[in-house]
Amino acid sequence: MKILVLNSGSSSLKYQLIDMENEKVLAKGNYEKIGMEGSFVTHKANGEKYTYERTAKNHEEAITFVLEQFTDADHGVISSLDEITAVGHRVVHGGEKFNKSVVITDEVIDTIRDCIELAPLHNPAALTGIEACQKVMPGKKNVAVFDTAFHQTIPQERYIYPIPYKYYEKYGVRRYGFHGTSHRYVSNRVAELVGKPVESLKTIVCHLGQGASLCAVNGGKSVDTSMGFTPLAGIAMGTRSGDLDPSIVTFLMKKEGLTPDEVEKVLNKESGLLGMSEVSADNRDIWESIRNNDENAVKCKIAIESYTYIIAQYIAKYAVALGGVDVIAFAGGVGERGPEEREMILNHLKWMGVEIDTEANKVKAEEQEISSKDSKVKVWVVPTEEELMIARDTAELVK
Amino acid sequence: MKILVLNSGSSSLKYQLIDMENEKVLAKGNYEKIGMEGSFVTHKANGEKYTYERTAKNHEEAITFVLEQFTDADHGVISSLDEITAVGHRVVHGGEKFNKSVVITDEVIDTIRDCIELAPLHNPAALTGIEACQKVMPGKKNVAVFDTAFHQTIPQERYIYPIPYKYYEKYGVRRYGFHGTSHRYVSNRVAELVGKPVESLKTIVCHLGQGASLCAVNGGKSVDTSMGFTPLAGIAMGTRSGDLDPSIVTFLMKKEGLTPDEVEKVLNKESGLLGMSEVSADNRDIWESIRNNDENAVKCKIAIESYTYIIAQYIAKYAVALGGVDVIAFAGGVGERGPEEREMILNHLKWMGVEIDTEANKVKAEEQEISSKDSKVKVWVVPTEEELMIARDTAELVK
Repeated sequence: MKILVLNSGSSSLKYQLIDMENEKVLAKGNYEKIGMEGSFVTHKANGEKYTYERTAKNHEEAITFVLEQFTDADHGVISSLDEITAVGHRVVHGGEKFNKSVVITDEVIDTIRDCIELAPLHNPAALTGIEACQKVMPGKKNVAVFDTAFHQTIPQERYIYPIPYKYYEKYGVRRYGFHGTSHRYVSNRVAELVGKPVESLKTIVCHLGQGASLCAVNGGKSVDTSMGFTPLAGIAMGTRSGDLDPSIVTFLMKKEGLTPDEVEKVLNKESGLLGMSEVSADNRDIWESIRNNDENAVKCKIAIESYTYIIAQYIAKYAVALGGVDVIAFAGGVGERGPEEREMILNHLKWMGVEIDTEANKVKAEEQEISSKDSKVKVWVVPTEEELMIARDTAELVK
Repeated sequence: MKILVLNSGSSSLKYQLIDMENEKVLAKGNYEKIGMEGSFVTHKANGEKYTYERTAKNHEEAITFVLEQFTDADHGVISSLDEITAVGHRVVHGGEKFNKSVVITDEVIDTIRDCIELAPLHNPAALTGIEACQKVMPGKKNVAVFDTAFHQTIPQERYIYPIPYKYYEKYGVRRYGFHGTSHRYVSNRVAELVGKPVESLKTIVCHLGQGASLCAVNGGKSVDTSMGFTPLAGIAMGTRSGDLDPSIVTFLMKKEGLTPDEVEKVLNKESGLLGMSEVSADNRDIWESIRNNDENAVKCKIAIESYTYIIAQYIAKYAVALGGVDVIAFAGGVGERGPEEREMILNHLKWMGVEIDTEANKVKAEEQEISSKDSKVKVWVVPTEEELMIARDTAELVK
C-alpha cells in the first residue's frame, strides 16, 4: 500500500509518497509560492533532486504537477496513480471535535471549517489541499490527521485558563496544544527504544524546532503540553515569545500605538531567540556570534541561556504533570541537531537525577541514548517522523 | 526605638507602630476611603479595637489623626511623637534603581517618581504618604522599602523576556518581581526555624494571598520569582490570570471589542480563581461550594485543582532555578490558612521527595513544620511579617 501525505500551507504544499510495506519514502518535495509569481517545486526521488520553476495558480495545479512526477516515464516511482491507496492530510486544528484521525467526509470538512476561527491561517490551507485532492483524484480516500487530536486527553483543570469561564463557553478559549502527531510518534518510538511498553512510561517529549513545544505523556497519553490556545504559547521559540505576563501585551500596544494584529506580529515574528539576540531566529547563527565573540555575543549568550532555562523549567513542570519522569526525548531541528542546547538543558536537571553522556550527546539527527548509564532518567534523541505517522494513520483507517 | 510603618494606597493608609526593643506592635490600623465620602479608620491598641468615622480629605489629614491616637490621653501608646524615631514606607516599585531600602532624600523621591510609569497606581500613593509625613512630622527621617528590591539579584537571562530587546532598553520591560519584603522575611525566618544559615539553603517561598507570588531564594538571594513586569504575572491568583498565551489577550480584545485598559481589567479583576469558579476570588467561598456540592461545585473543584497544579509546577520550576530545593515555605492568606491547598500542592511533589505530615498541616497562621520526618524537602508554614521587615530596615538605616 502506498500513501500520499500532504501538508498544505497557504502558498505551499509539502508532500511525501510512502510505501507502507517498508515505510520507505518513494518521493518527497515542497511546492512553494503557489498562487504567486515564481512558484517552484523541489522534488526528490530515486536519490536525485529536481527543481522545476513552474507556475501553479492554486493547490489543484500544484498537486496535478506533483502527481505527474510520480508517474513520469523518466524519474517516476510508481507506474499508475492507482497504486496510491489514499491521501493523508495534516490539519492543524481539530478543536474539541476530533480526538483522533478520521476519514474525510462532507461532515468532517464542515467541522474543520468550524475550527477556522481557532486557526485562521492554517485550517483554510488544509481545506484547500483536501478539496484539490478530491478534484484531481476523485474517489480516492482522504484522511485528516490533526495536530491537536493527541492532546484531547489533557484533563480539564489543565486545559482551562485562569480567565473568565465564559470565554471558554463562548469562544472555546482553552489549551489545545499542537505538534500532537510528533509528540505521539516520538513518545511511542522512544518506548520501543528503551524496550518498555509505552503504557508503563512517563515521558517528556521536547519538540524543539522554529516552532517548539513540550508534551507530558503518561502511558501513551498526552496529559499536558506547552502550546496552548495558539502555537504562540509555551516556551520561547525562534521568533515567538511563548507565555508572557499579559500586561506586556497591553503595555506595548499603548506605548507603541499598536493594534492587536500588530502586537501579535511582534510576538509571533520578532520575538523569541530573534528578539532577545537581535541576531537571528536560528540557533546556528547565534552560536556563530558567540564563537566569534562579536558585538552581539553578550545578547546571544543571554538568549541561549534564557531559551534553555525555560525549556528545563518546562521539563520540571511536566515532571509534576506526570508525578515523576522515566524518559526525556528530544526531537525537531534544535532537539535533533543541537548538542549544546541539549547539554545546557540537561545540566539544569541534575537535581532530578538526570546525567548526560557528553560523548553520546554529540549525535545529530540519529536515534541515540544521550544519558549516562547511571542516569535515573533516560534521555534520548529521537528524530521525529510526522509524515510517517500521518501515513500510518491513513493506512490504518482505509484498510 | 519606635518605628512607624506606613503602607499608603490611593485611598487608604495602613499603619503599624512598632517598638523595636521587643518588636511588638503598639498600635495598628487602617484608614479607608481617604479623599472620599465616608472615610473611616479602624484602630487597634492595648488589645482594644476602635472605629472612627472621620473625614480625611487627604493622607496628610489621615496621618494627623492617626498620630493623635498614638498620644491620646485615654488610649494612647506613647507619651509624645518624639518617641517615634523614623517612618518606614512600603514602596511598590523601585525599578532597577534600588536594590535595598534607603533613607528618603529629594533624589530618592525623584527616582520613585521616575518609576511611576512602571507602577502607575502604587507609586503615586506611596509618594503621597511620604510627602504627608514630611509635612506632618518635619525633620523625622523617612525610609523607603521596595517590593522589587530583593529581586534585583535575579540574573539577566532570567529577568529578560523573549520579546524584542529594544523594549527593555526603551521602556524597561523586564521581570521585576514583587512581594520582595515578604520573600526576604520568610526565607530568612525559615532558615532560623530549620536551624541552618540562610547562606547554605535553597528555599522556595510561596506567598499565596489575593496577590500571590513564588520566589526561588539561593543562599538568601532571590534568583527567580513568578511576578514579572507587573503583579499580574506568574501563577493564577484570586482575580488575576497570571502568565498566559499572549494570543488570548489580543483574541479577547478583537472578539469582545475591548481596549487595552478594558482587557487589563478583565485579566486583573475578573480572572484567576474568580474567573474559573464563577463564584468567588476567596478560596473559602470556593471550598464552601464544593462542600455543599451546589450547582457551582464542579467549576469550583476545577478552579482549585488548576490553582494548586500551577503552584506545584512553579515549585518544580524553581527547583530548576536553584538546582534542587531544601525548604519550601508557605506564607500569605492562603499559604498560612489553607491546609487543603497546601496538601494538594505538596501531593503533586511526591516525586521530588516531598512528604507531608497531614496532622501537622492542619495548622493555621502559626509557624509549623508540615513535612514528615522522612521528607527530603522540609516544608514549613511561616506567617509573613512585611511590616516588621520594613520596621527593621528603617531602624537599621537610621541607627
